[in-house]
Amino acid sequence: MRSRPFPDAGRVADDVETLARFRDPSRPGFTRRPFTPWYESARQWTAERMKSAGLEVRVDAVGNVSGKRQGKENLPSIMLGSHIDSVDGGGRFDGMVGVLGSIELARCLEESKTILAHPLEIVSFFAEEPTDFGVSAVGSRAMAGVLDDHLLQQKNPSGQTLGAALTASGYDTNNIRQARRSPDDISVYLELHIEQAPHLERMGKAVGTVSALTGFRRHRFTWSGRADHAGTMPMGLRKDALAGACESVLDIESRCRREADTPLVGTVARISVWPNATNVVPDRVEFISDIRSPSAGKLELVCKESAERARAIALTRGLNLEITQITAELPIEVPPLIREQATAALRDLGLEPVELVSMAGHDANQLARIVPAGMIFIRCKEGRSHCPEEESSIEDICLGVAALLGLVRRLDKN
Amino acid sequence: MRSRPFPDAGRVADDVETLARFRDPSRPGFTRRPFTPWYESARQWTAERMKSAGLEVRVDAVGNVSGKRQGKENLPSIMLGSHIDSVDGGGRFDGMVGVLGSIELARCLEESKTILAHPLEIVSFFAEEPTDFGVSAVGSRAMAGVLDDHLLQQKNPSGQTLGAALTASGYDTNNIRQARRSPDDISVYLELHIEQAPHLERMGKAVGTVSALTGFRRHRFTWSGRADHAGTMPMGLRKDALAGACESVLDIESRCRREADTPLVGTVARISVWPNATNVVPDRVEFISDIRSPSAGKLELVCKESAERARAIALTRGLNLEITQITAELPIEVPPLIREQATAALRDLGLEPVELVSMAGHDANQLARIVPAGMIFIRCKEGRSHCPEEESSIEDICLGVAALLGLVRRLDKN
Repeated sequence: MRSRPFPDAGRVADDVETLARFRDPSRPGFTRRPFTPWYESARQWTAERMKSAGLEVRVDAVGNVSGKRQGKENLPSIMLGSHIDSVDGGGRFDGMVGVLGSIELARCLEESKTILAHPLEIVSFFAEEPTDFGVSAVGSRAMAGVLDDHLLQQKNPSGQTLGAALTASGYDTNNIRQARRSPDDISVYLELHIEQAPHLERMGKAVGTVSALTGFRRHRFTWSGRADHAGTMPMGLRKDALAGACESVLDIESRCRREADTPLVGTVARISVWPNATNVVPDRVEFISDIRSPSAGKLELVCKESAERARAIALTRGLNLEITQITAELPIEVPPLIREQATAALRDLGLEPVELVSMAGHDANQLARIVPAGMIFIRCKEGRSHCPEEESSIEDICLGVAALLGLVRRLDKN
Repeated sequence: MRSRPFPDAGRVADDVETLARFRDPSRPGFTRRPFTPWYESARQWTAERMKSAGLEVRVDAVGNVSGKRQGKENLPSIMLGSHIDSVDGGGRFDGMVGVLGSIELARCLEESKTILAHPLEIVSFFAEEPTDFGVSAVGSRAMAGVLDDHLLQQKNPSGQTLGAALTASGYDTNNIRQARRSPDDISVYLELHIEQAPHLERMGKAVGTVSALTGFRRHRFTWSGRADHAGTMPMGLRKDALAGACESVLDIESRCRREADTPLVGTVARISVWPNATNVVPDRVEFISDIRSPSAGKLELVCKESAERARAIALTRGLNLEITQITAELPIEVPPLIREQATAALRDLGLEPVELVSMAGHDANQLARIVPAGMIFIRCKEGRSHCPEEESSIEDICLGVAALLGLVRRLDKN
């Protein structure tokens, strides 16, 4: 017999399964993109689930859906949250377990008639995954006060701006600053999320806590060479923009592979080639590098060195190279108090604690700009994520919710 | 004073300039793609130019426009030809100088009241550049009897087949075999063309003759890896299809760079990446390799070795790789008689002879399947081709026409 309320596997399984049905049937996997009917319906359904859990629901000026449970005292809220949008061709767990798990946590409190000292607020953040406008974490950025005009002016491939899309969805972009929150009304932000990496699985652990949120930088590399006939121009006289770009892709990969001790990853996943014709030597290539590390120094160094190497490659090959920074986010340390209490919460459940680094961008990265923030990770199969095969067991999710509940109760007392 | 008729620079310049006006104004450079109004008008204009030069014009079952001049004897024709279509964003000379130069040659014969022993036939071949259906040299393939059902079934990006496009243009694909020709009515095929390489310019020569037409092979490499989160999946556990493909691109490049003595070139100019999203490790990459050499043995070896190396890269990286051959054309030696007479024709003009290898695909490659074929190359600026900057001087073009005329007269006697 459990002495404390424990998440109900049946309810969690039902919620995961039901939410998974809100998907764009024309896309692979479980696709639920912002500004689509499937996302809108899923947000409505989520609001209903919040209400059923006894939460007072409101939608803020940028579309974040939040459900609030009053506390005993007049204190800033403990905020829990995540998102229910997906990448194109994504899965059923990334983001969703944080929202559904937090709602289950509220139900546990409700059933055990527990009233915390702090108010509890659960948020389903608007559009966390990179949108077609190139902007991610739209809702949590607005809450942190950093969804500025520059971001609202970003365009999707059809030329529509993010601001125009929000307006078309009924949100007045002039009012977006009303979504901004502060430490005056939030004491701490906590997010439950699938790990999206294979470390917990490899260690045989269901749940881990997070010590730091990775920093990351994205750069656009634009390589310009010369379009020549692919048959007639001798090898030694070519200015092949694609071959130069390939050298740089491999340099970034090997540079990040060498760093085995501190987590560091580097990826080139998006590339465009012009004119992209079989018999014309490529004269222009654009790719985006994405480099991440919880060590600010290492991040800086790898970006600097890979840019230097790319410039040397361009020089040797007679190519022109422009490198522009698109994103630069500093690493964030989870505050010691949250780390200690999270570790203790795992021990309370009889779990051996383990700390991980979060290498993905999360709503937590945005909230950490304004309030102390922490995360709890749930094991997922083979570390797969952003794909239909993404999978965490209901049992592990329930352990994650239990750990989050333990952490909430501990922080509520501090 | 010249003892023989010589091409008229003013007429040639006028023709080059006038033909250049038939261009798609919505595309860069001098774009004249098959199945467009600009190409149709240019073909009409070419037919008119042929008529003005005293040629008897007909259009065959696949759209080749030819102009014939009777000979003194009942012999198979000496055929001259090239094309007036361009690549997207192409120039004013590739193909066009062969058609316009041959018409000028006919005018020279007409003016000097020269009647050759052989009939002379000048052909503007239909759609020589790679079409949107992936098929090149449509007209000359039909004439060589190799435009088969498989090729007619190839589709453009809108899903239309080449056969359907020909039908829509008024050509009955059931009659295409009527375009087929044979040594019974063609004795030799000669083509005047810009060099599309910088060798003549570097040697300070206006005109060169061709000793061999390159062989070439195209392969599609399809790399399959695994889509993972670009932040969370550790470097050592990734199956990055793009990184594997980049290694292979550089291997093909360095393999071809090493072969300095025999002409050999290798290019990867067309590449597609899935899902091509900044934060998802690429799980699929498709590229097309294009490898060319006049040495069949070297071509075979480089293709074999680059495929072997690609398979080794895939194995090391845990990727799946499929390689399929798209095109395989054997190298063609120009027959000794044509080479000797072409060299003599250059000497007749006081030019020091030089022989080159043709590294591009030409209508001559198709005609060589059925009759002896040769080519004469004209110097072009910096070897640039398939771009708006493509340029040959009118003086060099006239020397090329004069050389072609000399070669025709010499072969007419043999």
